[in-house]
Amino acid sequence: MILEGLVTTLSHDGELNIAPMGSRVEPGMARFVLRPYRSSSTYQNLRRHGEGVFHVTDNVLVLARTAIGLPAEAATRPADVVCGAILTGCCRYYEFRVLELDDHQDRTTILVATATSGRIRDFFGFNRAKHAVIEAAILATRLDFHPLPEILAEFRKLATAVEKTGGSDERRAFALLQDHVREAALARGLDPDRTLL
Amino acid sequence: MILEGLVTTLSHDGELNIAPMGSRVEPGMARFVLRPYRSSSTYQNLRRHGEGVFHVTDNVLVLARTAIGLPAEAATRPADVVCGAILTGCCRYYEFRVLELDDHQDRTTILVATATSGRIRDFFGFNRAKHAVIEAAILATRLDFHPLPEILAEFRKLATAVEKTGGSDERRAFALLQDHVREAALARGLDPDRTLL
Repeated sequence: MILEGLVTTLSHDGELNIAPMGSRVEPGMARFVLRPYRSSSTYQNLRRHGEGVFHVTDNVLVLARTAIGLPAEAATRPADVVCGAILTGCCRYYEFRVLELDDHQDRTTILVATATSGRIRDFFGFNRAKHAVIEAAILATRLDFHPLPEILAEFRKLATAVEKTGGSDERRAFALLQDHVREAALARGLDPDRTLL
Repeated sequence: MILEGLVTTLSHDGELNIAPMGSRVEPGMARFVLRPYRSSSTYQNLRRHGEGVFHVTDNVLVLARTAIGLPAEAATRPADVVCGAILTGCCRYYEFRVLELDDHQDRTTILVATATSGRIRDFFGFNRAKHAVIEAAILATRLDFHPLPEILAEFRKLATAVEKTGGSDERRAFALLQDHVREAALARGLDPDRTLL
């Protein structure tokens, strides 16, 4: 199963990096696999210092912001046993240490072991708007690989679920992603309101 | 915010009904709103005896099965304070009593108050396959309102997320919904493998 969450790591000078990431997990979460790209700060930080924290969260605003490179605007506290940071607004966290790091491919495979874990609050549950934001955030990070007209069309479909089932955070998160994609379209000479599939 | 979950109610002769349902909620869940159709067992049961249980769950197999009228195959125990049943495999439950029931329209509006609530286990977190099953289940219940070719096309897209990010329960749940939609297509003389948008 792939569990979408947020990974925090620290750079060599202690700067916090927060990145959305899908983690390959099994029940119990004793070990799990992260697959960051070699170009990412997460990979670089974990290669240098093999510790970090994986978070389960339902806060799509932080997920959306970090997906498109905006500051997370999320409170943190020092991790319990690893050298790292916990997002205090998350639902659960898993502090981890790297066991194996395979970076032969551009998309790396990093096996980690949970050092300790904690529970802060309940996950909201199934909400179509939250998930529409997750799908929109994934699309917004694929602007270089995916045809923009298709992405714009998909955004128009996702907008309906956000409007019908979301709260203010989901709407804000979706609007940020929408602006990001519209700016990319304009930069390529496409009119986002007139681009049809 | 709309929280997708499962509602249990009892019929006049004590038969358990389990129905997937979106509930309009606010933080704290002291009160929330259910909107079952007048034709549904949930509405009929709540009108007769205004008590039931709303469940937050990440078990998409039960959600998918109940969405298309298959037996839930889910364990239950008697509710703590209302006359009803708790799905023991759920994450959290909210036993409720009806405060106001407006059935002037075909889709009713039922305001309920939480009588007691409980927590059984953690919700998995964001998983694209689980959400693809939710979207597929919603589509599978709209066969009479939505063009079938569009539904079949949407299923083909959702299948990718299920394959890439799901576990065996998500695959089984999706396959059940897929079979249901394919049977509906065949019953209308459409070949589900050759129907294009």
